[in-house]
Amino acid sequence: MSRPPGRKQDSHKISRELFVLTYGALVAQLCKDYEKDEDVNTCLDKMGYSIGIRLIDDFLAHSDVKRCRSYSETADMIAQVAFKMYLGVTPSVSCSSAAGNEFSLILDKNPLVDFVEELPAERASLCYCNLLCGVIRGALEMVHLAAEVTFLQDRLKGDAVTEIGITFLRKPEDRKQKR
Amino acid sequence: MSRPPGRKQDSHKISRELFVLTYGALVAQLCKDYEKDEDVNTCLDKMGYSIGIRLIDDFLAHSDVKRCRSYSETADMIAQVAFKMYLGVTPSVSCSSAAGNEFSLILDKNPLVDFVEELPAERASLCYCNLLCGVIRGALEMVHLAAEVTFLQDRLKGDAVTEIGITFLRKPEDRKQKR
Repeated sequence: MSRPPGRKQDSHKISRELFVLTYGALVAQLCKDYEKDEDVNTCLDKMGYSIGIRLIDDFLAHSDVKRCRSYSETADMIAQVAFKMYLGVTPSVSCSSAAGNEFSLILDKNPLVDFVEELPAERASLCYCNLLCGVIRGALEMVHLAAEVTFLQDRLKGDAVTEIGITFLRKPEDRKQKR
Repeated sequence: MSRPPGRKQDSHKISRELFVLTYGALVAQLCKDYEKDEDVNTCLDKMGYSIGIRLIDDFLAHSDVKRCRSYSETADMIAQVAFKMYLGVTPSVSCSSAAGNEFSLILDKNPLVDFVEELPAERASLCYCNLLCGVIRGALEMVHLAAEVTFLQDRLKGDAVTEIGITFLRKPEDRKQKR
């Protein structure tokens, strides 16, 4: 592609509703394929990981981001730039550990569930949006940041907000970052 | 939703790459689930149909479209407004029948295959983007337009362009349109 790096191209912008509905079809298909919610969750996470390791190139090419110098900056980048680019929302970020390696992304509104009323009773353990955790984990790995990413709260399950927890697994001084 | 009708909301705009990669994950999953390409194609079409009958409300709410008065106007609307909104591209339209009920949407570039190099040899009959046909069919049905929608050419299969054929099944005078 001949796009200049570091510039957003409006021609790449789309309405998100087709994406949200297509994502719903994917989750529904996996629920047909796997009886156990845990297996659906694992599959979504793996798919997300595969997407994340490819999406990071697009992210770096189309965002004007500078190299992050701390976990805190990285978490802010994910929330304010990546979520905005790919989902059209900006979660708030909070640091949830004294060690400074655990962060929460808090979504008051999760566009991925726009067309979902509630989880069926027999799917109470489904992490409907688990693909996102995999995407974040995969993308971070490609910039040499190992992380655990999981849903801590989910409005689909009756929680007040949707909260994604990111735990960075190495210390800042060990990190090598690559753009 | 409390959005004023007939106005595009920029907050709903997202980069399409996450969508394109998620769509790829969906197709890959269906290829795991079904041995025959025809079954994958049918499944994608059905999923698309279910999406189309829901997406039409979003389309009518967020586009400034007027009621179409001919098949030709409808085909132009799909190409110039709907494709632009949801995929960020504008196919060219040609009418391919004297009766005026068959149209082709021709895509020089198909963003849905951005990350697809080529179809594997054992998947030569796969209509990778068949979801789109179902979406168009479902959305048209909701405005009381019965149509057959199929891929006529596909660059993934070595054709020069990607061409989606739309055949409207009723005569204009039989139609009832609803916004």
